[in-house]
This record gives sequence, C-alpha cells and structure tokens, in this order.
Amino acid sequence: MADHYYVGVDLGGTNIKAGLLDDKAKVLTKFSLPTEVDKGTDQVVRNITNAVERAITDAGVDRQKVAGAGIGSPGPLSHRRGVIINPGNLPCMKNVPICELVHGQTGIRSTLENDANAAAFGEYWAGAGKGVTDLVMFTLGTGVGGGVITEGRLLRGHFENGAELGHTLVNPGGRQCSCGQLGCVEAYSSAHFLARHAEDLIRQGRPSTLKAKVDAGETLMAEHIIDAAKASDTLAQEVWDAACYYLAVTIVTMQHVINPERVVLAGGLIAAGDFLLEPVRKKFRELTWKLLDDFPEIIFATLGNDAGFIGAAGCAWHAHQTDDW
Amino acid sequence: MADHYYVGVDLGGTNIKAGLLDDKAKVLTKFSLPTEVDKGTDQVVRNITNAVERAITDAGVDRQKVAGAGIGSPGPLSHRRGVIINPGNLPCMKNVPICELVHGQTGIRSTLENDANAAAFGEYWAGAGKGVTDLVMFTLGTGVGGGVITEGRLLRGHFENGAELGHTLVNPGGRQCSCGQLGCVEAYSSAHFLARHAEDLIRQGRPSTLKAKVDAGETLMAEHIIDAAKASDTLAQEVWDAACYYLAVTIVTMQHVINPERVVLAGGLIAAGDFLLEPVRKKFRELTWKLLDDFPEIIFATLGNDAGFIGAAGCAWHAHQTDDW
Repeated sequence: MADHYYVGVDLGGTNIKAGLLDDKAKVLTKFSLPTEVDKGTDQVVRNITNAVERAITDAGVDRQKVAGAGIGSPGPLSHRRGVIINPGNLPCMKNVPICELVHGQTGIRSTLENDANAAAFGEYWAGAGKGVTDLVMFTLGTGVGGGVITEGRLLRGHFENGAELGHTLVNPGGRQCSCGQLGCVEAYSSAHFLARHAEDLIRQGRPSTLKAKVDAGETLMAEHIIDAAKASDTLAQEVWDAACYYLAVTIVTMQHVINPERVVLAGGLIAAGDFLLEPVRKKFRELTWKLLDDFPEIIFATLGNDAGFIGAAGCAWHAHQTDDW
Repeated sequence: MADHYYVGVDLGGTNIKAGLLDDKAKVLTKFSLPTEVDKGTDQVVRNITNAVERAITDAGVDRQKVAGAGIGSPGPLSHRRGVIINPGNLPCMKNVPICELVHGQTGIRSTLENDANAAAFGEYWAGAGKGVTDLVMFTLGTGVGGGVITEGRLLRGHFENGAELGHTLVNPGGRQCSCGQLGCVEAYSSAHFLARHAEDLIRQGRPSTLKAKVDAGETLMAEHIIDAAKASDTLAQEVWDAACYYLAVTIVTMQHVINPERVVLAGGLIAAGDFLLEPVRKKFRELTWKLLDDFPEIIFATLGNDAGFIGAAGCAWHAHQTDDW
C-alpha cells in the first residue's frame, strides 16, 4: 500500500488525459475525456475537477491519502501563481486561477505546470530519465518543446519561460521561426518546419520526388520527408540532415550549459526510430568537444502520450516531497 | 554582530586571494598571497590553510562563529567530492582532496567550487546580481567563462561541467575554438580569439591599421582591436562586431534556456564599457523574439577581481544555509 497518491491531469485543446499514481509512479488508473473548449471556461474547469474526482473514484483509493493533483497545461501560464494565462489552443482559459479552483472545488491541493515541463518530469520520474537527476528533453512535434531538470528540479526561470529549447539559436540569421527569430532549432528540426523547408526548396526549383505533391497544392508532412529521405530523395535527405544536424548542435550547447546525464527525445518525430537517433548521435559526437568525456546519453522517451499526465502527477509528488506548492 | 562568518579563498595560478565575510556578504578583511605552485602540492595546500587561518585572525572574529570556508579553484574539479582534479595552471594540484585537507588542518568545514561558478555566485550574493534568483554570468577574459544560478542555486550538472557557456555553439562549423569545437562563442567573443580573428583576416590580405603590428611579428591584443575599432578601422570593427554579435546570440539562447532576470558580463573585456554593452544590448533586442517580453537586463559585474573570493565565501554561506556541504 502506498503512503500517498497523486492525480495527474494533462489539459489539451481537444482532450483531458488524467490518471492516479502512487508515490512510486505506478499508474493505478487512467482515462481521457473531452476538454470542451467551445463550452467556455466554467465547463472546462468543471471537466478538470471532474477528472480529478474520477481519478480518485476509479482507482478506489482512500481520498485522505491523495496528497495532491498536478495539472499540465499549454502555456503561457504561471506555475508560481497557479494561473493559466492565455494558451493559443484554449482561448476560453484566460487568466484562470486553476489551482485555487481545483483546490476549492475538490479539497485537493494542486500545482500547475507547463505541459512540456510536465512531460519532461514524467520521463524523469517514471520513464527514460528514471534514476538520473540531470536531464534535458526535446519534444519534436509540430514545434520543438523542451524540459530541463537539474538536481531533480524543473528549471523554470525568472519569467517562467525557461527550457523553451525550441528557440535556442542554432543558425543565427537563418530560417524564420514562428516565434519571429531567425535560425531557431524549431525552424529546422520540428515536424512543421522541416516540411516547410522541403516545400521552399522545391518551389525554388530544386528537383525532388515530392515535387508532384507540392505542385498539386498538397501540404507536405514530416512523414513525407522522412519516407522520401529513406528512398534516397536528395532534397528530402538534405532537409532531414539539417533537422538532425541542428538538433545535434543544440544538444552540444545543452551539454555545456546544463550538462545532463541524459538527453531524451520525445514527440511525433521519434516514430522515425534509428533514422533519427543514429544521425543525431553521430553528428553530436562529431560536433562536441573531445576535451572531456561529459557526453550525455541520447535516447528516446518511453512514456509516449502518457508523459503529460504522469509528469503532472509527478509535479504534485515533488511539491508534496519538498512542501513547495 | 553577525551570527556567522565565512572564509573565501580564490586559488589562482599566481596568487591566492582570500578574505572573511559576514552573513550579509560584508567583507571584513581581504588580502592576497603567492600560490607558490613551483614549490609543490604540500606548500600550495599549506598556503591555502594559512589563508584560511589568516582571514580569521585578521578579522579578529570569534573562531567558533566561522561556519565554513569556500574555495574557488580553476577546474577540472569535483565540487561533490571536494577534489581539485587537474587544473592546467596548477600542475601540482592533481587529485587533491582540498576540502578534507582544509577541514583536517583547520577544523573549518569547507566547500570547493569552480572559479567561474564562484565568481557568478559572488555577483549573485553581493554584486550585480543582488536581489535576483536567476542569473547568467559571462566572464569575458582570455576565454569565455560562465556561471548560472537558478532559484538561488548554482547549476553544476551531472558531470560537474555545467555552465561552460564559452562552448555554446553560436556558429556551427565556424571558427576553431581551443576546445576543439568549431563555432563556440569563445572563438569569437574572448579577448584571445578576437585578436586571433583580426590577425587571420590581416594575414589573408585584408587592409587594417593593425597590419604593421602583425607584419612586425607583434601579437595583437584585444585592446588593440578595441582601440582600432573605435578609430574606425573597418577590419577591427568587423571583428568587434562579430564578438558582440555572437555574445548576443548566446544571450538569446540563455534567455530561452535559463530565462534569467539578469545577464551579468564580467572579465577584462568589460573595460571597453559602453563600446561593448551598447552593441550587445542592441543586437540582443534585434535577435530575440517579440512574442513575450521575458528580456533579461544585461549589465556589468561590479565586484571585479574580488568576485572570486567573495563568491567562494558565498558558497560556504549557501552550504551552511542549506546544510549541504
């Protein structure tokens, strides 16, 4: 029997994933329910508190032993104040003091965390980062998200925008990122931007097996680039190579700044498997110094889409351990 | 009357700077004595323990109230184990368990810290970083050193080589750094490398008022470049511009990774004053995102050469506060 249990809630634009874990990070129950963003703030908050209640009920644990709930949400948000500020995909959740609301309506203490940070904490607590204290995670999805753990603590930063690893500059003056900067790693190594990169080169007249799709007005996806690169399409190989190269560049920088034991890669792009992992590892070794052998292991995340709610529960566990809510 | 006092020792290749501070970071005494590297390990260790004793005696405080000593040393070293491993400029100090030795010979508990980290902690505790909890410091000397403080704690990393900010990649594949990597910020923004950069361009045939010096076999210094740039020498301006630009690039990256409230610039190059600070600030604002206004203040360090021993004492203060020696 565990001493305490923790609810984890992963708030997304479409669904809320939630579950209940014990203090050894064992998942006792998990489920998903619709966020219902279109029904407004009150309904979304109700769905969150319902998820907290359901996690406890479904698991059938003693409510007195539930030490807290963690909520992972897209940013911007304030962990410190427990307030969801203004996420792009949750337009009704403007300045919502979610921790206060959850606590008030369920009696369960809660902590709020940026979803990328929560996922990193999930991998640290229960996944690919288990057993290490210093970890850097890159989530290679539509964008490039990040999470950094040093000495077992999430790095949040003064403005609470720390670990925005997608916006580290890997090629200053280079490709335009959605954030306005030129040359972010996100502009090369995210699913969205690597497809845009290929389209741009094709529109510039470069030959490619993907040209027909672009000419037909189809939007290229990362999978198309990966498949074409595997099939020896030179343009797709060049784009994929740049994605792996710039990811390796930022891993070198993280090695020297954060000096983690492990670098964990997560997100949709890791479906590429060794076609991603091998070049990233190889380029990292080529780019980094040989002065010292402080090389992090570069590995894939293991929790998949569960990292968010598991990590959110982990944040509640950590808040309880350190008495820092 | 202070509750506790802390000795700070800054171990350098030529001199040991030391002093005694109270728990409000007030310097009660400070002095310098020769390191005597040529006389071997025992003598250097004796000089360190003598410095600890002298700091207490000179300040005339009650020995019972001296809660600890901090020792700042060039790396590589292990803070965790309290061992100086193999600093290039202290060849006799190989695998010296300095904390154990100081404790054994003086009865004063001690903590060991990398000198760049100690200096950053000094600025955080008593200088340009006073009052903030998240700070990034760049020491622009012969090389580019770094120190990172998050939530009032030094970032050390798993391999204890964290915050090696000079080796963040700002121009992958670019100029060769002393560490073996290509395109580190140190290869552009350090006193040593910016002078090498100017020499290389002159040897490639580029015109410059500095050409006569290079032709005469004189080694260019950073000051020469700065003076020539101020006097509108195009080549020197280009080199100085690159130094400021790449420093700004790495500050953008640090903004997104560490998200500090302040970025503190220290080291010999800050003698350039506004000729350094203004372009760095301007380029930083041009390079960074406009999405959020999480912009750190970029300012100069205020403790000069005292940052090392003050920060070392600060590390002892922190170890005492957190009971983490």
